[in-house]
Amino acid sequence: MFGYGNIVLYGGTGCPDLAEELSSLLMSPLGARDVLYFSNENIFVRLHASVRGQDAFIIQTTSSPVNDNLMELLVFLDTLKRASAGRVTAVIPYLAYARSDKKDQPRVPITARLVADMIQIAGADRYVTMDLHAGQIQGFFSIPGDVLSAFPMLADHIRQKNLKNAVVVAADLGFAKKARNFAVELELPVAFIEKRRSGEQSEALTVIGDVQGKDVIIVDDEVNTAGTLANAVTLMKESGAQDVYCCFVHPVLSGSAVERLKDLPIAEIITTNSVKIPEEKQQQLPRLTVLSIAPLLAGVIRRVHEGRSVGEMFTPYHAYT
Amino acid sequence: MFGYGNIVLYGGTGCPDLAEELSSLLMSPLGARDVLYFSNENIFVRLHASVRGQDAFIIQTTSSPVNDNLMELLVFLDTLKRASAGRVTAVIPYLAYARSDKKDQPRVPITARLVADMIQIAGADRYVTMDLHAGQIQGFFSIPGDVLSAFPMLADHIRQKNLKNAVVVAADLGFAKKARNFAVELELPVAFIEKRRSGEQSEALTVIGDVQGKDVIIVDDEVNTAGTLANAVTLMKESGAQDVYCCFVHPVLSGSAVERLKDLPIAEIITTNSVKIPEEKQQQLPRLTVLSIAPLLAGVIRRVHEGRSVGEMFTPYHAYT
Amino acid sequence: MFGYGNIVLYGGTGCPDLAEELSSLLMSPLGARDVLYFSNENIFVRLHASVRGQDAFIIQTTSSPVNDNLMELLVFLDTLKRASAGRVTAVIPYLAYARSDKKDQPRVPITARLVADMIQIAGADRYVTMDLHAGQIQGFFSIPGDVLSAFPMLADHIRQKNLKNAVVVAADLGFAKKARNFAVELELPVAFIEKRRSGEQSEALTVIGDVQGKDVIIVDDEVNTAGTLANAVTLMKESGAQDVYCCFVHPVLSGSAVERLKDLPIAEIITTNSVKIPEEKQQQLPRLTVLSIAPLLAGVIRRVHEGRSVGEMFTPYHAYT
Amino acid sequence: MFGYGNIVLYGGTGCPDLAEELSSLLMSPLGARDVLYFSNENIFVRLHASVRGQDAFIIQTTSSPVNDNLMELLVFLDTLKRASAGRVTAVIPYLAYARSDKKDQPRVPITARLVADMIQIAGADRYVTMDLHAGQIQGFFSIPGDVLSAFPMLADHIRQKNLKNAVVVAADLGFAKKARNFAVELELPVAFIEKRRSGEQSEALTVIGDVQGKDVIIVDDEVNTAGTLANAVTLMKESGAQDVYCCFVHPVLSGSAVERLKDLPIAEIITTNSVKIPEEKQQQLPRLTVLSIAPLLAGVIRRVHEGRSVGEMFTPYHAYT
Amino acid sequence: MFGYGNIVLYGGTGCPDLAEELSSLLMSPLGARDVLYFSNENIFVRLHASVRGQDAFIIQTTSSPVNDNLMELLVFLDTLKRASAGRVTAVIPYLAYARSDKKDQPRVPITARLVADMIQIAGADRYVTMDLHAGQIQGFFSIPGDVLSAFPMLADHIRQKNLKNAVVVAADLGFAKKARNFAVELELPVAFIEKRRSGEQSEALTVIGDVQGKDVIIVDDEVNTAGTLANAVTLMKESGAQDVYCCFVHPVLSGSAVERLKDLPIAEIITTNSVKIPEEKQQQLPRLTVLSIAPLLAGVIRRVHEGRSVGEMFTPYHAYT
Amino acid sequence: MFGYGNIVLYGGTGCPDLAEELSSLLMSPLGARDVLYFSNENIFVRLHASVRGQDAFIIQTTSSPVNDNLMELLVFLDTLKRASAGRVTAVIPYLAYARSDKKDQPRVPITARLVADMIQIAGADRYVTMDLHAGQIQGFFSIPGDVLSAFPMLADHIRQKNLKNAVVVAADLGFAKKARNFAVELELPVAFIEKRRSGEQSEALTVIGDVQGKDVIIVDDEVNTAGTLANAVTLMKESGAQDVYCCFVHPVLSGSAVERLKDLPIAEIITTNSVKIPEEKQQQLPRLTVLSIAPLLAGVIRRVHEGRSVGEMFTPYHAYT
Repeated sequence: MFGYGNIVLYGGTGCPDLAEELSSLLMSPLGARDVLYFSNENIFVRLHASVRGQDAFIIQTTSSPVNDNLMELLVFLDTLKRASAGRVTAVIPYLAYARSDKKDQPRVPITARLVADMIQIAGADRYVTMDLHAGQIQGFFSIPGDVLSAFPMLADHIRQKNLKNAVVVAADLGFAKKARNFAVELELPVAFIEKRRSGEQSEALTVIGDVQGKDVIIVDDEVNTAGTLANAVTLMKESGAQDVYCCFVHPVLSGSAVERLKDLPIAEIITTNSVKIPEEKQQQLPRLTVLSIAPLLAGVIRRVHEGRSVGEMFTPYHAYT
Repeated sequence: MFGYGNIVLYGGTGCPDLAEELSSLLMSPLGARDVLYFSNENIFVRLHASVRGQDAFIIQTTSSPVNDNLMELLVFLDTLKRASAGRVTAVIPYLAYARSDKKDQPRVPITARLVADMIQIAGADRYVTMDLHAGQIQGFFSIPGDVLSAFPMLADHIRQKNLKNAVVVAADLGFAKKARNFAVELELPVAFIEKRRSGEQSEALTVIGDVQGKDVIIVDDEVNTAGTLANAVTLMKESGAQDVYCCFVHPVLSGSAVERLKDLPIAEIITTNSVKIPEEKQQQLPRLTVLSIAPLLAGVIRRVHEGRSVGEMFTPYHAYT
Repeated sequence: MFGYGNIVLYGGTGCPDLAEELSSLLMSPLGARDVLYFSNENIFVRLHASVRGQDAFIIQTTSSPVNDNLMELLVFLDTLKRASAGRVTAVIPYLAYARSDKKDQPRVPITARLVADMIQIAGADRYVTMDLHAGQIQGFFSIPGDVLSAFPMLADHIRQKNLKNAVVVAADLGFAKKARNFAVELELPVAFIEKRRSGEQSEALTVIGDVQGKDVIIVDDEVNTAGTLANAVTLMKESGAQDVYCCFVHPVLSGSAVERLKDLPIAEIITTNSVKIPEEKQQQLPRLTVLSIAPLLAGVIRRVHEGRSVGEMFTPYHAYT
Repeated sequence: MFGYGNIVLYGGTGCPDLAEELSSLLMSPLGARDVLYFSNENIFVRLHASVRGQDAFIIQTTSSPVNDNLMELLVFLDTLKRASAGRVTAVIPYLAYARSDKKDQPRVPITARLVADMIQIAGADRYVTMDLHAGQIQGFFSIPGDVLSAFPMLADHIRQKNLKNAVVVAADLGFAKKARNFAVELELPVAFIEKRRSGEQSEALTVIGDVQGKDVIIVDDEVNTAGTLANAVTLMKESGAQDVYCCFVHPVLSGSAVERLKDLPIAEIITTNSVKIPEEKQQQLPRLTVLSIAPLLAGVIRRVHEGRSVGEMFTPYHAYT
Repeated sequence: MFGYGNIVLYGGTGCPDLAEELSSLLMSPLGARDVLYFSNENIFVRLHASVRGQDAFIIQTTSSPVNDNLMELLVFLDTLKRASAGRVTAVIPYLAYARSDKKDQPRVPITARLVADMIQIAGADRYVTMDLHAGQIQGFFSIPGDVLSAFPMLADHIRQKNLKNAVVVAADLGFAKKARNFAVELELPVAFIEKRRSGEQSEALTVIGDVQGKDVIIVDDEVNTAGTLANAVTLMKESGAQDVYCCFVHPVLSGSAVERLKDLPIAEIITTNSVKIPEEKQQQLPRLTVLSIAPLLAGVIRRVHEGRSVGEMFTPYHAYT
Repeated sequence: MFGYGNIVLYGGTGCPDLAEELSSLLMSPLGARDVLYFSNENIFVRLHASVRGQDAFIIQTTSSPVNDNLMELLVFLDTLKRASAGRVTAVIPYLAYARSDKKDQPRVPITARLVADMIQIAGADRYVTMDLHAGQIQGFFSIPGDVLSAFPMLADHIRQKNLKNAVVVAADLGFAKKARNFAVELELPVAFIEKRRSGEQSEALTVIGDVQGKDVIIVDDEVNTAGTLANAVTLMKESGAQDVYCCFVHPVLSGSAVERLKDLPIAEIITTNSVKIPEEKQQQLPRLTVLSIAPLLAGVIRRVHEGRSVGEMFTPYHAYT
């Protein structure tokens, strides 16, 4: 036993599979608890056993249903704090509202900061999450945290394909630098897609850089409605690309995402289980590879608990923050 | 113009009718704004005009969908704060999670305190709300606030019936003291219903006090699934009551509430629009009277803005906190 | 030794007997310290030995002299914090100002929240207390705490009397729900007393429920001036009650309390030593039973120190919060 | 009306005469309020009229009964904050616990910082006080405040005596620098008294500097038990002083202070009404001059309210902080 | 006079020219003050006149000497807060440490968040600054602020050149998105430079996109040592560019920056006075255009003071955050 | 290993010699780290190894360059906090800005409080420092800390000289009380120097007390420009003193300090290495004795780490706070 008592794992209702997987990897059972959604929609949490002085981890994502999951996380944190846990770590595979991270127009919120404040005030002593949309979001927290990246794991998967003549393409210019880092890790060149409004409703896409005759790996941190990604795939093909791979960490895949992607000439979609893709969606996305982030998270939880370096899990270090 | 600039009203999506009614009563238009629920369920708010230095009121309830409405309120508060409003008041007709106000068993949260903290950290300088489940919830806030009561208005309605031989009945013992105050206001006696578990699943109800041959006014602050209320009505009839009136502030009416109530021998259900009852539910509850809290809220908003006494609206004062 | 160092007990001047009793039960001596009340009435605390990194508990009540005792508690907390204790727990057998927990009229304070804030800002990491007037006061704290109840112990005492035909009576409607829970624990019925103003100065009391020919157990959380209780006893007798027992946790017994009670036909007064009753008062209340809360507090302190469940001390759990 | 509404004055029970005097000078009535000390010693405050958006000043000292007065101040601040005052200023003629301002031995508190934190957390936006024991106590507050000095007023009084051959003497070496400033203001030399322990119980006093044949003005910020002062007077006479004047701001005069001073050969005691000296004590101290600080406080309150310079009241400026 | 009193401008020693220019534009004199750097290097500020209740703006940059200027800003804020200013706005033309905004490797600080916290804790109620390295830094503040952009002004300057066949080039991939927005505003295409390590010490630069035969506008937010910029200029020329313009907001130009740039074939360097370029450096950079940000800042200060929209100064709105 | 993990020492760039000395005494190596001052003067810290859960001490003074050193300390604290150290202690041999500890004139800052707040917000859990200018500065912190004194060590040095006929002299009246305590420790009398302005620019010094024919030990906490000290030495000689010793803790010695002191008839300057005196200055001050504070600091660090009493290092206790 280390300074903060024994490890105690709890899973919220947001990502039960991942919580189970972490429990197996850490050989530590999930704590028994009730999570009730009353008929008035109020969320209630009750732990079955004492966590007094223990090192508690609550594994709860904030993917869909976003606000319910977020509130459940907060209620869980308050419960653990008031139950006198020794230390409380929020393990959040996917952090919602991360794209609302700046005022890029007048009179809009910075919800990601609000969410960080809420997590702290609810009782988290630390947090663990994956591939934030902007690394600066770490600075929204004043508690310490560990932000992991699945890109090295995605790169390993790509590397095994041994593609001879390939290029990494950023689907969005905001992702340009991270796409470059991904390309460096794979020792490949990089190219970009620029989106520009042309007229009222339509957009024109341009490829900047060389993709002709090459296998293309389109990368992004998160795919939501897949509009940008679908257009990128089409543009790549029109620009003479060979095989097109889509590679991203967070498969939010909301709205018509699956509709947009399912018939496109995509060689493979490579993503993670940071957001669970429902079975029926998975079936419509046939060349889909979902890598598990559980070993990564388990490694971090174990190291956080034992007071060992998390940084050394990522050597050599390639910045995806 | 008073110290905090001009009054500026905003309405969230949680209670648009009430916001409109307040706008009319205050002769002040609702500020133009976008409230977007993106396909990834993230909520986004954008104000169309400057609120710099103004006295802003955001009218947003936290009734169903509870967590979405709550999050929308918080995002709105962050937006107003970062848009440099002079003062921000959260007007919340119905405050969710108010029943999660104490640890009455081990390892449960006190979510009402969490919600109060969230509202403050998001940027509210003040709050206005109606009939909290427990008056102590005011103490969960460290910002000042005004908690109004609709009971005097409900009492006025009952008084006009001129019932000769009536009794006020508390459906739940936690409401005993407020029921007494309501009875005092109406110059009527009071009685109570006690609920006790009898065996595994069933409950036995007892009436304590005298209802035989009297008109009965069952009072409560909020009706949720209406299980307690329905049983109370039946018990009253079995105990020889004449007409049975049901009187409560917050018509949450979730789950099978309407099913339970619609065929019962209720003389009248008297409630408010603090929670909007959908049209189809209203039609199933025929002897339904819904009093508007808008004049109350409008009076408070005007007085808050002008720096005038709110207390004098409630004279003589009967504590429902 | 657990995570927070060794257990270190300190007693303030507010409840020396209880502190000694806890020290005995925990087999841990009270730390040597000076508590000085200078001639200018300023309170000063000095610890004789180091508490660096230790698990410190300060046992100090806030009963009479209330503000001196409260200030002494705060000064003690500041001393322990600045002396670098590893963790500081305020053990407060009776928490003053708990009845000032809501704004039930305009322009009054919520002093209980203020007191909670003061305890936190002075340096408490946790608190332990007994039977708060309202369970919501736990939510006034954002630090974790343990609020114990003496009612199960009081119920055990009553149970041993093996009363055949008894009823539990709540002296105040605000206590109705807890009285019901007490009655359930004793498998007895419950009745209530209603107090209503009748004319300028006088009050009329009514009993609601059936007490005729029964033994009556009047329950409340705290007895202060005993005006309510004395009237209740008289009313019970007038209503045909057999033996009347008075049962309450906190014997504040201020003002003319003893005067009022001493000649009443009370079968037994059952209370605790959460507030010390001076010897001369005890002698005037002949059928007085004072149960010690020290075993309860000692159990909690030991469990808090060792990181073990406090909840399991209260099984089956009956909510008195 | 300025930015924070109209001026509203409230007086606590700690210094009613001073509050009345300020009310007269400011031509602003004291707000009607109840300050109740219940029989359980809990303090309760209730304001009779609205203070919403107004510029409220609560005049409450923290002299004897110290902890009651301090708690009353805090309860008053909470009341004003929750009653939505526009700005709340604590006017504290004498701040208790100011001598507990540092850890000058191991394991003691810094109560003055605790008191500053309590005043802030209770709801004060600003504070006004007189001659703090150490100027650094201003730094214990993070809210702005005005700390006034009565020494220029005391110096004016001395100056009118037109003493030809006088010396200012610091009774305590901790007051050496301020005594020097006082001497500079009076264009007089300065001398010091050193106190050293000689044996178990007794102390030896030495005068450092020249007092032989001179009139002596002993100065200090506060006189508590008057032990130091009485010894100083005796030493001065033994050292050949002519007339001996005692000059200090805060006449705490606790314990045997009056006993010690009443028969000493003191030409005059010059002090202020920052602490009220009870009538019977005044009569035992015949050559007593009490200067009123009310004009000073009134000047500051007016300037704070009107947003005008307070500094210009003290020109030329002599530091007594 | 608006809600926060009259406008009061103060200038620190970091950017006296800009402060003077703002004072002229706002027709409001700079407040007299002493800013002393004692021989022990401690900074001291003293205001000559009262700011009580006024709307104070302190104009102080945090460019070189960075830590002295930052500390002076903080000391100024503390001074204004403790002098009871009605509202305090920190006007910071260039915010240091903005590049330390995330943990992109293990065990490094997020100094930009630290700086934001320091500015808040020192007493700022608001802040105004220019073109932050990352828009997310706004989220590091919980006080409201206005972050202006000089890019529209720089774009206006470029537009007047009426370049027929030009391309905007981002010198760094982290600036890709903003470069695109700048290109959109100028209705020009965009290209990128990628920097990749090739061997131990050297780096290889690649241009991605088409620059051959075109006029090139290299854009960035800030130029520090100019290493990246100088290499970019050379690469552009090698890649067949016509005229090369360098366009950036913050001319930090530290180390050998001027050395690197002075002999390069640059058609024009267009920047602002957010950081003052010393005269001798200006002379070495002959084709240098420095646009003043003073009108922008003055406009914002006026609008902040008057409670008018700042957003409408930037219509149509192009996001450079 | 104690509760907070293993001891981990880091040294900033402000006092590398002292850090090395502490490392030797504690037999614990200094942690490898980079401290970079970029060409834009931004400070950057990177730790080479994990500190997760460890008991980290950062040894960094805030002597010249003051603001750089202070900022480096803060950046280091943020780094350690975000690197998840178990506990972070700031070891600050000399705390800058300690003389800016009160508002002794209108509209000046209290920078020492600001610095305390900055240290806390940056992430320090505790602090250790030496001989603060005013003991009250401890109260500016709300985290616990240990303030050591070098005066007992200086007294030991003096004692060994076995001076027969000596007097302790306070160079400044603000130091009178501590000088007295120093004199008590040495069993010597005490005298004082008073400085008074005489005309526009010049000052007149007077000695108060007896120095004629005695060896004189002038004491102070810190010597900055040495103007006061140099004048004191001259005055002592003019007043008939024998040998004159100068004794002070913090040798800031800025500006012309060395110039002023080097040719004066000083028997010995006795000080510490709390501030490093550059080699060239040391050579100009020939009769200079520099005592190391490292054993004191090492003792405290060890005791803080092991949770043992720090107070017992100072027995018998003489207050220099």
